[in-house]
Amino acid sequence: MNKPQVPDFLKNIRVVLARPSHPGNIGSAARAMKTMGLTRLYLVAPKTFPSDEANTLASGAVDVLEHAVVTATLAEALAGVTVACALTSRRRELTTPLATPRELAPELVARARAGEGVALVFGNETFGLSIDEVEQCNRLITIPGNPDYFSLNLAMAVQVLCYELFSHVEVGVDYLKPDGEAATHEEVDGFYRHLDQTLDAIGYYRRRNGERLMRRLKTLFNRAQLQREEVDILRGMLKQMQRAADGALPPAAASDAPPPDAR
Amino acid sequence: MNKPQVPDFLKNIRVVLARPSHPGNIGSAARAMKTMGLTRLYLVAPKTFPSDEANTLASGAVDVLEHAVVTATLAEALAGVTVACALTSRRRELTTPLATPRELAPELVARARAGEGVALVFGNETFGLSIDEVEQCNRLITIPGNPDYFSLNLAMAVQVLCYELFSHVEVGVDYLKPDGEAATHEEVDGFYRHLDQTLDAIGYYRRRNGERLMRRLKTLFNRAQLQREEVDILRGMLKQMQRAADGALPPAAASDAPPPDAR
Repeated sequence: MNKPQVPDFLKNIRVVLARPSHPGNIGSAARAMKTMGLTRLYLVAPKTFPSDEANTLASGAVDVLEHAVVTATLAEALAGVTVACALTSRRRELTTPLATPRELAPELVARARAGEGVALVFGNETFGLSIDEVEQCNRLITIPGNPDYFSLNLAMAVQVLCYELFSHVEVGVDYLKPDGEAATHEEVDGFYRHLDQTLDAIGYYRRRNGERLMRRLKTLFNRAQLQREEVDILRGMLKQMQRAADGALPPAAASDAPPPDAR
Repeated sequence: MNKPQVPDFLKNIRVVLARPSHPGNIGSAARAMKTMGLTRLYLVAPKTFPSDEANTLASGAVDVLEHAVVTATLAEALAGVTVACALTSRRRELTTPLATPRELAPELVARARAGEGVALVFGNETFGLSIDEVEQCNRLITIPGNPDYFSLNLAMAVQVLCYELFSHVEVGVDYLKPDGEAATHEEVDGFYRHLDQTLDAIGYYRRRNGERLMRRLKTLFNRAQLQREEVDILRGMLKQMQRAADGALPPAAASDAPPPDAR
């Protein structure tokens, strides 16, 4: 399977950091964005920018920093945006509904896909967003977490939001899956018959309930969802078991290594 | 609404860092865990531990570091575990099914709730998990992301996984929502009638399609899901509009400020 492309509409989603204090967080946020296919970073009155520290922490995402837009006010950073989401972990006396990233992500992705501008707005590391900043947004998002320790680092919050949005984009991880082909029903069935015959031939069923044992073994292998190659390996083992049982090999030569119990 | 408690069964989920190189990542991982209610950290042959750097980056999660279990091998860190998840972003020639955190989280939470031990196993920052380490796990997890830039920092990956697990635990964010009471159907209906009468009284419907306008306004207010307090504010405005229209107030005293257009 070929490597998929990050969809173009993700450029309609911007991350806005309002008054960030620590240059390292700007760099880490850029890296976090790029891992999830986002590239548009807006910085409202950053304390220090650009900086070596931000570049270092951005790692391979320095391009995101180079294209970052620095503005004096939040209003400028929200130009062209229809949905502005204020990230907050405080209880707010506002009647804007408070949503989790999971609840809001499908709408945000749908709007970005339709060409609307979407902004995720993060406040200062220490003070969060001001009331005035929150009032410029039309959505409130809170990341669910430990009620007794809600100390999510700024860049970590950016990572969580970008992850959540990306998980609603059809890029998945299928392209990383090995090509192994699942065995067909006939192949698995052929293996079961072979297993049954072999167990019978080597005397495993003697004084045992063969039907019940076979049922348990089938359940195990069904659960594992056998691959074609694995069926071949298992049937190879069965052939060898039968050959050894038939006395085709002298006992000492059946294996070069002692059995595990003898070690 | 009272602050909810982090459920006790989260102690059955451990985060295992295999051969971490950077002390800062250990501290950031501890903080990431605690924000999502996880506390059990295992460190397999860490390069440096304990350290001041880890303690600094752990912020308020130093307790997680203090209780961290240091082991020489991954096998020791997995003692008692039934489900061990290897985090990997590489294409592996293994037939263990590859899942996303979202796909696997419900099972992991259910098993932890049932008392089973669950481990999330993260590899070294540069080399990831070795083949031998992956083979000691019975699940493979890949965080979906930008196929062209998959450079997720170790602590960020821990944050994403812990966030995903926590989002399947019933601790939502409802306790942060303001107590505002939604208006009932009768209250909203009373407001609509009041609005209709007022618009008629001030002559807004003259030469306009009143029914259509009212329908649009109702749609807007329905979408906003009015609060009881907001209905009171709006009806107060309507009363004042009618009073002003009735000439109860001399025009100049109707407002202390000039209308916006005159500014």
